Amino acid sequence: MSAEAAISALAQDAELRTWSLIVTIFGDLARAPGAEIPGPVLSAITARIGIKPEAMRVALHRLRKDDWLASRREGRVSHYGLTDAGRAESERATARIYAAGPPNPSRWHLLLAGPMDPAARLEREGVQAAAGYLCLAPGAWLGPGPAPADADGMFAFEGEPVHLPEWLRDEIMPPELAAAYRDFAETLAGAAKALPCGEIAALDRAALRVLVVHGWRRLVLRHPDLPDVFFPENWAGPRARAQVLRLLDRLGQPAIESIGAEIRSARLDEAPSRS
Amino acid sequence: MSAEAAISALAQDAELRTWSLIVTIFGDLARAPGAEIPGPVLSAITARIGIKPEAMRVALHRLRKDDWLASRREGRVSHYGLTDAGRAESERATARIYAAGPPNPSRWHLLLAGPMDPAARLEREGVQAAAGYLCLAPGAWLGPGPAPADADGMFAFEGEPVHLPEWLRDEIMPPELAAAYRDFAETLAGAAKALPCGEIAALDRAALRVLVVHGWRRLVLRHPDLPDVFFPENWAGPRARAQVLRLLDRLGQPAIESIGAEIRSARLDEAPSRS
Repeated sequence: MSAEAAISALAQDAELRTWSLIVTIFGDLARAPGAEIPGPVLSAITARIGIKPEAMRVALHRLRKDDWLASRREGRVSHYGLTDAGRAESERATARIYAAGPPNPSRWHLLLAGPMDPAARLEREGVQAAAGYLCLAPGAWLGPGPAPADADGMFAFEGEPVHLPEWLRDEIMPPELAAAYRDFAETLAGAAKALPCGEIAALDRAALRVLVVHGWRRLVLRHPDLPDVFFPENWAGPRARAQVLRLLDRLGQPAIESIGAEIRSARLDEAPSRS
Repeated sequence: MSAEAAISALAQDAELRTWSLIVTIFGDLARAPGAEIPGPVLSAITARIGIKPEAMRVALHRLRKDDWLASRREGRVSHYGLTDAGRAESERATARIYAAGPPNPSRWHLLLAGPMDPAARLEREGVQAAAGYLCLAPGAWLGPGPAPADADGMFAFEGEPVHLPEWLRDEIMPPELAAAYRDFAETLAGAAKALPCGEIAALDRAALRVLVVHGWRRLVLRHPDLPDVFFPENWAGPRARAQVLRLLDRLGQPAIESIGAEIRSARLDEAPSRS
């Protein structure tokens, strides 16, 4: 088996928007303050995944315009790095993407809004959603930990959920998303099987990591971060998470420099210099 | 001052529906299984409060028809007692009426219904209200103690309230009811002041007890049984409860026999024998 086969397995099932993939690359390989990826290395990773150079150029332009990436020239080579804003956003997602397990607060709180006019209600919905609350019913929200000192005119109740009905589980994890988790777990199993037993090149390891994290990120950021008990029974989430962590552990974290050295020694340092 | 003045003070502010007052009389003076009140004693108590014999006869007829009271003849005198159904209902109210203080559960549970059609929702509202739940918002109910094992498809949460907003306090204790509590507390204070220092006749004690319990009962059964923290600040409920308990303690529980003996010795045993 080969890293090539594993990369294909992961790439063919992924919905790859180039700018989103680049967000994943920097989040996984160059999140540290000051970390940079030289243009040729970035191009080599995306090319390995099957992204065309033109799509890559468009995405880089957009990410710089959105103040997500910054670039600087050093001779003929551009070096890219996260801006402070890009890093802050990346850090926020990171906590969820790389978490060893779901959150497990021992205490929760529930807020209930009183009667209010539609405009006030809409505003309240927005405030609660932005603060990461799970909406249980119109005007009812669940959050981890103790209730805020200022419940803002709402009824606040502290404790823990003791019964989670089917309708709530299905609302939190709709059938389409549950199916996407199942498919991803299958893909990961296939990729893990395809991986060679021996050493894998740094570029391949980078491409594989990026595809694994990207597929996982696209799922976990689409639903609230809750303990597994909130999700439907036999949901593939816990299995997919275990596979993601196992694969990342097996691939290790390749240094940007070792990818660069690999490209140069393979005399690939001419072609990607256009980006 | 006199018992007469205290009786007048209490009776003039009360909304006295005769059948309801008789329910109070039996609940206070003859709740024990097998306990009876002879017609002449019953008539003497109601007459002392200002109820006309005709209203009394109509009410007794209604309460017998409703299987609330049963009667039996012994010579020229009817004896009245609670039926099993009447006693059961009386016992249920008794727990709240004579409670030394408000309930104080350390744990509560909250139930949230999922999306449902209007008919199902209406039925659910009825079921929850009958089970003594406090409706916090459409589809949201609060109950004391742990959640039922069968939450019936609802989201169940166990814990304790930490913030009770004004809108909820006002919903639980509307301004009119709060005002009625305030008025009753005033009336009780007036009655307590009017009471003579010396011994009070058994019939007067019975009439006073009945008026105190009746006024109190009409208030406490009009809102959910909750700790004081659920009610508006400066609510007169705790003050009224303390006055009720103090007055009942001061009046003591007159035996039906001693009231009968008093009536006979005052040669009043002829007039009320018609009932």
